[in-house]
Amino acid sequence: MFPATTYTARRKQLATDVQSGLIFLPGNAEAPMNYAGNTYPFRQDSNFRYFAGHNIPDLALTIDAASGASRLWGDDISLNHVVWMGEQPSVAELAARIGAERGGSLAELSTVLKTYAKEVKFLPPYRADRKTYLKEHLATLFPTGMGENAGANKGLIRAVINQRSIKSSEELEQMSIAVRTSMDMHAAAKTHAAPGQLEHEVAGLIEGMAIAGGGRLAYAAIVTKNGQILHNHYHGNTLQKGDLLLIDAGAEATSGYAGDITRTFAIGQPLTTKQEEIYRIVDRAKRESIAAARPGVKNRTLHDNAGRTIFSGLKDLGLTKGNPDEAVAAGAHALFMPHGLGHMIGLDVHDMEDLGEDLVGYDENTRRSTQFGTSSLRLGRELEKGFAITVEPGIYFIPALIDQWKADKICADFINFDKLKAYYDFGGIRLEDDIAITASGSRLL
Amino acid sequence: MFPATTYTARRKQLATDVQSGLIFLPGNAEAPMNYAGNTYPFRQDSNFRYFAGHNIPDLALTIDAASGASRLWGDDISLNHVVWMGEQPSVAELAARIGAERGGSLAELSTVLKTYAKEVKFLPPYRADRKTYLKEHLATLFPTGMGENAGANKGLIRAVINQRSIKSSEELEQMSIAVRTSMDMHAAAKTHAAPGQLEHEVAGLIEGMAIAGGGRLAYAAIVTKNGQILHNHYHGNTLQKGDLLLIDAGAEATSGYAGDITRTFAIGQPLTTKQEEIYRIVDRAKRESIAAARPGVKNRTLHDNAGRTIFSGLKDLGLTKGNPDEAVAAGAHALFMPHGLGHMIGLDVHDMEDLGEDLVGYDENTRRSTQFGTSSLRLGRELEKGFAITVEPGIYFIPALIDQWKADKICADFINFDKLKAYYDFGGIRLEDDIAITASGSRLL
Ligand SMILES: [Mn+2]
Ligand SMILES: [Mn+2]
Repeated sequence: MFPATTYTARRKQLATDVQSGLIFLPGNAEAPMNYAGNTYPFRQDSNFRYFAGHNIPDLALTIDAASGASRLWGDDISLNHVVWMGEQPSVAELAARIGAERGGSLAELSTVLKTYAKEVKFLPPYRADRKTYLKEHLATLFPTGMGENAGANKGLIRAVINQRSIKSSEELEQMSIAVRTSMDMHAAAKTHAAPGQLEHEVAGLIEGMAIAGGGRLAYAAIVTKNGQILHNHYHGNTLQKGDLLLIDAGAEATSGYAGDITRTFAIGQPLTTKQEEIYRIVDRAKRESIAAARPGVKNRTLHDNAGRTIFSGLKDLGLTKGNPDEAVAAGAHALFMPHGLGHMIGLDVHDMEDLGEDLVGYDENTRRSTQFGTSSLRLGRELEKGFAITVEPGIYFIPALIDQWKADKICADFINFDKLKAYYDFGGIRLEDDIAITASGSRLL
Repeated sequence: MFPATTYTARRKQLATDVQSGLIFLPGNAEAPMNYAGNTYPFRQDSNFRYFAGHNIPDLALTIDAASGASRLWGDDISLNHVVWMGEQPSVAELAARIGAERGGSLAELSTVLKTYAKEVKFLPPYRADRKTYLKEHLATLFPTGMGENAGANKGLIRAVINQRSIKSSEELEQMSIAVRTSMDMHAAAKTHAAPGQLEHEVAGLIEGMAIAGGGRLAYAAIVTKNGQILHNHYHGNTLQKGDLLLIDAGAEATSGYAGDITRTFAIGQPLTTKQEEIYRIVDRAKRESIAAARPGVKNRTLHDNAGRTIFSGLKDLGLTKGNPDEAVAAGAHALFMPHGLGHMIGLDVHDMEDLGEDLVGYDENTRRSTQFGTSSLRLGRELEKGFAITVEPGIYFIPALIDQWKADKICADFINFDKLKAYYDFGGIRLEDDIAITASGSRLL
């Protein structure tokens, strides 16, 4: 946790921005796995953690926007529970540690919320238990037939995004810790992975290291020899000499901040020439993107530039053809990189995705593309000093997608479909780093 | 997965037992961690897995109890999703693998459930999303003001418990795999743990090994030098030479079956005489319990016997006094072992806890005790051939509890409170094994 003054300052800024109403930030509860008593590892809500610090279940924060008064709500444990859980700090003590007052019990909070319902402002819920709670307590704020997040307060969402988007030096320090653990995980995987192993042996090594570091994984690790399957969490394949292994894995530090790193290497031998040709293109796209990242540049521009680098690199190999600018405008690069160049990162690996991807990554000056591939770019807007983002270009050969484009003649002027036959069993390569935007450029975290 | 015939036979038995109505067994969905798209590792519902096998989210099983017709419901993925997820088997193919028919899409299932609402029978939900789903679809089955699980069908619960309580040889084989991985985890922890390490370094090693084995942990590991805090998931302490480290950790095999093993050892040196005296009592209680376990014996009797062994052992050390039978009847042993001797284990570490602890562990011949300590015993009823259970005696010195008993003069005739002073910083020792009840006794899994 940061010093109390950090949380006090954040809440003060939030109250100033929101101006009126009762801001309600519920912390997360335990999440049942296969019965109520067997829960997943506790994961605090990131917004609660940002403004209230504590990584403890069943707490809630309220901020009276007009007066700025902050209250922490929760139930103290009984002596009976002390036997099972050990001594725990009281809610009053927890409140003091973040410069807030103790509000009262959760039952008292219920009454307050129901009483002030029309003035309560909350963020979009993403867990079912919290959705139920909000609907039960704040029914009047849920317009009928308007989607389950319609009750969330837009001004509050905007104010939280504005504040969380700019990382302080103490936050960036925590992110560096997460990235360092993540780099150690990747280094160990590269040293350890060998022919004959199962993917989940490597996955276990990585996840164990994240836990040994005092946190956990920031997201489910991708450890796959089928890198062309982008959302692939199957780990049952046996690694063979020469297989490309794509690992996308990041640690979450004890403080809650995430790392998000991707590396791709060959099992048991150096990259083949064919693999290295593709690797170098991806690496060039990554290095160029990082070099070009600075305040005032749109991440959408970096994404398009990376697409051009990838298209041109593949053209040098004879896999694509035609004018690179026209090809990127037509979206031809998305056959090889159907995802976005990167996203914000912070307390969430896709930072603030619960608040709405478009609100976080786009604004009135930068609208989300509707084109296949680029439409998946989570962050398009101008970069600002203090942003923390990922840079993660990739090249994949996805047989089902190539077949579809070929059959439908999509971008047929730019793709040498026949040449791609030799790459159907290639897999995919992605390289990902995390950077902070500085006053004049960027730096690796 | 087991062969289709296994699931077909299980469902046929269930239909026979339940006789009428539409049995509805929804599989689990992904569980959001910090936003909808960042989910916890998927954990299938154990009842669904028992009758429908598949470890895949967003499926549901229905069984027409009268006809026995079994249907698997779910949505096939689109070509668009193939790009992200790779080729996936169709729901029809998944249904065939378990000897069931394809029902239809989840939207069609919704209609069926609403249409047949009054005949639908379901089990108690434990996840908020499923509670919401059931209430939306089967509102008529939820009696107002009667608790959220009142809608669950008692006959169905009973039939599922009866079937899942008796483990087949193929199930016991899977449990042995889980136990073997668990034993490897404990062996590695003992080899690896050393002065200067943090508890979470050991925790990471253990959890990584469970994942490397192709499954995950069956429950959050306890790795603590404060074994006297029973529900202790804090892993931030530094291990020092001579500290007792209590590790309660079990792997879940790829098949979903759990192991649940506890070991306690000293860091960097053999047990001291004082530690070994306590260890031997716990070990004796464990060995005697395993030796006495057989069909027809109540687990409550084993629990009481273990309590007597513990009380007598501590009496030999001068920590307790008086007649052991009277002491156990008065509950004096619970000062040192405030938990139960064991519980059923299977697809859940506390098997079928979602169906109701008393229905699983007690019956008309054996009622749950209301006495402190023994009231925590999850399994009291007569053991039967095919049961799989844990045996986990422990001795803990819990200062807050000792102080409370002393102040309130609880069991003062049986406890030498003054002698306990020397044990306030002892911690706790628990030893736990998993056994299967055979025709004539038991065997270690
Ligand atoms: Mn990323
Ligand atoms: Mn146990």
